[in-house]
Amino acid sequence: MLPRGRPRALGAATLLLLLLLVVGFFLFGRDPEYGLRADATLDEDPYGSRNLSFSGLPPLLPPKCELLHVVIVCAGYNSSREVITLVKSVLFYRKNPLHFHLVTDAIARNILETLFRTWMVPAVVIRFYDAEELKPLISWIPNTHYSGLYGLMKLVLPSILPLSLARVIVLDTDVTFSSDIAELWALFAHFSDKQVVGLVENQSDWYLGNLWKNHRPWPALGRGFNTGVILLCLDRLRQTSWEQMWKLVAKQKLRTLTATSLADQDVFNAVIKEHPELVHLLPCVWNVQLSDHTLAERCYLEAADLKVIHWNSPKKLRVKNKHAEFFRNLHLTFLGYDGKLLRRELLGCPNQLPPGAEQLQQALAHLDEEEPCFEFRQQQLTVHRVHITFLPHQPPPPRPHDVTLVTQLSMDRLQMLEALCRHWPGPMSLALYLTDAEAQQFLHFVETSPVLSARKDVAYHIVYRDGPLYPVNQLRNVALAQALTPYVFLSDVDFLPAYSLYDYLRASLEQLELGSGQKAALVVPAFETLHYRFSFPNSKAELLTLVDAGSLHTFRYHEWPQGHAPTDYARWREARTPYRVQWAADYEPYVVVPRDCPRYDPRFVGFGWNKVAHIIELDAQEYEFLVLPEAFSIHLPHAPSLDISRFRSSPTYRDCLQALKEEFHQDLSRHYGAAALKYLTALQQSQGQA
Amino acid sequence: MLPRGRPRALGAATLLLLLLLVVGFFLFGRDPEYGLRADATLDEDPYGSRNLSFSGLPPLLPPKCELLHVVIVCAGYNSSREVITLVKSVLFYRKNPLHFHLVTDAIARNILETLFRTWMVPAVVIRFYDAEELKPLISWIPNTHYSGLYGLMKLVLPSILPLSLARVIVLDTDVTFSSDIAELWALFAHFSDKQVVGLVENQSDWYLGNLWKNHRPWPALGRGFNTGVILLCLDRLRQTSWEQMWKLVAKQKLRTLTATSLADQDVFNAVIKEHPELVHLLPCVWNVQLSDHTLAERCYLEAADLKVIHWNSPKKLRVKNKHAEFFRNLHLTFLGYDGKLLRRELLGCPNQLPPGAEQLQQALAHLDEEEPCFEFRQQQLTVHRVHITFLPHQPPPPRPHDVTLVTQLSMDRLQMLEALCRHWPGPMSLALYLTDAEAQQFLHFVETSPVLSARKDVAYHIVYRDGPLYPVNQLRNVALAQALTPYVFLSDVDFLPAYSLYDYLRASLEQLELGSGQKAALVVPAFETLHYRFSFPNSKAELLTLVDAGSLHTFRYHEWPQGHAPTDYARWREARTPYRVQWAADYEPYVVVPRDCPRYDPRFVGFGWNKVAHIIELDAQEYEFLVLPEAFSIHLPHAPSLDISRFRSSPTYRDCLQALKEEFHQDLSRHYGAAALKYLTALQQSQGQA
Repeated sequence: MLPRGRPRALGAATLLLLLLLVVGFFLFGRDPEYGLRADATLDEDPYGSRNLSFSGLPPLLPPKCELLHVVIVCAGYNSSREVITLVKSVLFYRKNPLHFHLVTDAIARNILETLFRTWMVPAVVIRFYDAEELKPLISWIPNTHYSGLYGLMKLVLPSILPLSLARVIVLDTDVTFSSDIAELWALFAHFSDKQVVGLVENQSDWYLGNLWKNHRPWPALGRGFNTGVILLCLDRLRQTSWEQMWKLVAKQKLRTLTATSLADQDVFNAVIKEHPELVHLLPCVWNVQLSDHTLAERCYLEAADLKVIHWNSPKKLRVKNKHAEFFRNLHLTFLGYDGKLLRRELLGCPNQLPPGAEQLQQALAHLDEEEPCFEFRQQQLTVHRVHITFLPHQPPPPRPHDVTLVTQLSMDRLQMLEALCRHWPGPMSLALYLTDAEAQQFLHFVETSPVLSARKDVAYHIVYRDGPLYPVNQLRNVALAQALTPYVFLSDVDFLPAYSLYDYLRASLEQLELGSGQKAALVVPAFETLHYRFSFPNSKAELLTLVDAGSLHTFRYHEWPQGHAPTDYARWREARTPYRVQWAADYEPYVVVPRDCPRYDPRFVGFGWNKVAHIIELDAQEYEFLVLPEAFSIHLPHAPSLDISRFRSSPTYRDCLQALKEEFHQDLSRHYGAAALKYLTALQQSQGQA
Repeated sequence: MLPRGRPRALGAATLLLLLLLVVGFFLFGRDPEYGLRADATLDEDPYGSRNLSFSGLPPLLPPKCELLHVVIVCAGYNSSREVITLVKSVLFYRKNPLHFHLVTDAIARNILETLFRTWMVPAVVIRFYDAEELKPLISWIPNTHYSGLYGLMKLVLPSILPLSLARVIVLDTDVTFSSDIAELWALFAHFSDKQVVGLVENQSDWYLGNLWKNHRPWPALGRGFNTGVILLCLDRLRQTSWEQMWKLVAKQKLRTLTATSLADQDVFNAVIKEHPELVHLLPCVWNVQLSDHTLAERCYLEAADLKVIHWNSPKKLRVKNKHAEFFRNLHLTFLGYDGKLLRRELLGCPNQLPPGAEQLQQALAHLDEEEPCFEFRQQQLTVHRVHITFLPHQPPPPRPHDVTLVTQLSMDRLQMLEALCRHWPGPMSLALYLTDAEAQQFLHFVETSPVLSARKDVAYHIVYRDGPLYPVNQLRNVALAQALTPYVFLSDVDFLPAYSLYDYLRASLEQLELGSGQKAALVVPAFETLHYRFSFPNSKAELLTLVDAGSLHTFRYHEWPQGHAPTDYARWREARTPYRVQWAADYEPYVVVPRDCPRYDPRFVGFGWNKVAHIIELDAQEYEFLVLPEAFSIHLPHAPSLDISRFRSSPTYRDCLQALKEEFHQDLSRHYGAAALKYLTALQQSQGQA
């Protein structure tokens, strides 16, 4: 009689487990006398996992909800971008909670900390380790590989990772997953007692030493191993005094070899050559290497399923090979993949929400979908992923009167950037509201623009799109928070500053002797042209000539004069020295303020009143508005954006904006008491007029 | 002694196979006396595959490169969009060649034939079956389900699919895969001899009949089965005279039940209730049903891995449930996924290139990457995926003088569409150059615009982005090919036609008595405004007043007068009747021509000379240019697009354009002989002047 129901199924599972162990022994068992088994190398049975793949039988997976540990060394701006694509590919296929251990320099840490904090992926834990502290441990090894000292850090992981960590997967930043990382983790189960490191064979003839004349590689077992993907048994490494072992071997080899060529990989191979019992050979599909002289085709043409692609060097995506398109498509999949879609929980695992996520979920759950301003409320609560300094950046040297131009834009204003660079030779901090795919287009745009790629003092911060309303003030706050000079010029991207403005502002700041803590907002008068083609005035005199000729106007003179009326353009015409002006309702000048000025109010999403509220905040905090007599910037024409057209035509939009204004005034009263009354009165008066 | 190398591995694989069969018997074996095994239903062991999933052991996969067959019934515009998302998800995870059998109405066939032909996915075969022919077979069954007759067609598949087909997977259009379809196919191996249909249990209490008072569902075994995902053994169904069986049962039930509520699913369940031995129960993860009253949570919280999500009804994505976000993200992944990335071959399978792909690959391989115009050459060869009539569309009734406005645009001109609809009340055929993600934004834009969603005579054709240069003439040709009226007005999207233009053109066409085959190109004079805000003239008289006042200009009067000079604006001012004009170099008027006019030359990608070449072609084919005295359209200002700015500033761009022009002229001489000489002379003269 057969057992029935659950007991029967459990019995079968147990039986299966036992059988798999037996089979595993057949397939993975090592012959200790010969070191490596030949049947998993390129020459003898090139595909390693072929029989496994063909039978379609993957190894046993780790239990549902088991935490897996991954280590990545990452330094600098470009590697930080790369590592995000890798992480996206891992998260896309993963079904387990993950703990990423990131060994980073200060640049990567700054970028990735912000990114992961704002990404808010459930069931992901991030821990940072300071690469700086590791440098002394490996700096004695000369290395000619482009990865430099960072390339050697995998050697010292056992000494710096927490003692409680027994096993980790170590990845290079230039690999992409196309499978569940738990399948890789499962291969730990196949290690023999003595094996401490799992590696895929190196898929080129590099270590055979026959690639060119006088090519003298480090010693390796056969073709050697590639260290782009490593399974590391930390506990056993610690027991086998790994540290002494690799140092001894490295020192010995460095007596005859002047430096490592392939960083840690040379050392790992030299150690394995002497201690072959330490290595566990992984199937080739777990590290398909697209390097120069690659022999990977022998692996991927036979395999049923590729698991991890290793690009090996920056140029790999452009390699002209008949399968280049195939691999390029895999990579582009994750490059352009919308990271917010990875904010999905692991169904059925205990909740592992990142910090802040629970409150956020509750706040969102309290919103009423039927309420007319629901879209506004939801947008206000949205936490956007933020990738600061997306491109290499040189922070400006500390100078007491330096000014950063701060603004925000989306894809439809990208063509403004070159002109902006020509008009503003100083530092800029720009927030860009883009999708992941657009961020790649943007990258290409900068790289192919001689003007933009020459500028290292422009910091680009990507805020990833999410939701229907443009989060204008959240964007401004991101750009503002990343400005590194004592002063900031808060501008809009459709404005081109006078060519001399950067120098003039710094000179003015110096002359005005504004001490730190002195609350001044220097007003840069705003003009506009309605024509595409016009020659930008080189001086105030030229500007005034154009104004008189009717080719230039004061900004929004016809539609919204109150926005800039307090600047007093008539007085500015004649002014030779800065003059003070008073706040009035709806004033929204472009100003230069100290970097520590109040932030923009993020409740204003979409269009309308976002700058007005900020200027009120400045006035409430008793900033003095000083108009600069030689400063100006000019607004260029553009078609109304899609968002503006959509929402300006909607009565709901106007009602919601009104509600936002009222809430803003309530908060203002709460903060500033009776002093805030004048703003409310002004609002009511202006509404009475309208 | 252990066997070594390959023989050892093969031995292990064989052993494993045997063991799995034994285990499979334990896990999947049916007890024939009781019909269904209880341990795979929601109540007893709700997760079906739980033990399997937990052990991480999937079923044996089919051999590498085996062809799998999939059947989908699809009708109408919206289902055609839906099915593409489904197909994307299948292709993303698949590793096998696939044959899709599509049962379609004329609308879906038209859309999907174009789409798959231009998609050019390797190792995918498409075959269409006419749903019209199936209707008589099932039209006798009353059905209240929204799917109508199409919902019943799965019942008759065994009679219409080729006899050579033994097994197929049948899918509803509203399912999304999150796993390799080969794993589903592999479940055929678990069917007993008598089982003919594999189904997942229905994940609601619908068939229990207790959802509301007087709810009278069709009979079913327990909770019944869901037919959104079916494994069908066609050969066995044919042998068991399936046709008689289901008809008999359906007729019998229809004596007491007035109609099916859930289409084919009711009939399948009624048959299974009487013949439980026919059904093979599939694990719940293969059809996770997010319907009203869903109990799917019992399945997905326990399962290690979801395989197929079934949205069940159009509103499902908006269901407010605590896992809605999780499922929405899965769906959005493929909605926005760039379909061209799925054009990847199956490495190691015999090449199964779609028609034309091989010549294309060869042509691309012949290009020289170092050649300065490489990007142009590559762009010219690019085959873009095309989704014609992306949204529901009502073809215009046949009228002898009707005119379709034909144009093309990308995302940055979307805001022109509403104005265009207000100015042109007739049919339009628009090609949109978008990414997959942008196509979804566009869909949302139309759905939320009262102006656009009210218009059913506007056909939107999506041409998916690929490559750095705007394929302007390929876009125009797509829009032109889809125009359904005898005449077309070839315009650009930045132009707004006079409000009366549509009526005026039809009247003119009638008055001019242009016979079919008569070659006339009616010129619509072009003007431009440099201001955003301007009131559109209601008549020629008003237009002339604005021209005289300097608010309007003839188009590109300052930058490129030769583009429209032959239109002779001075004569037009006074004209009361149509007048003939002669071609001259660089002439590029906007014209109304018969639908069968020459196509645009697709070699012109990017910007420049694309319309000029078309007008030359018209002249070479002896079209008569007739200027209409009351017709006009006005160009609105816009910032230069990113593409224009990028390429206009590049000397290479200008050189390549020059090369294209010369090749065009060579081809012209080849086609038209000495008659084409005048174009070359004109080109040389104008270059001499420049």
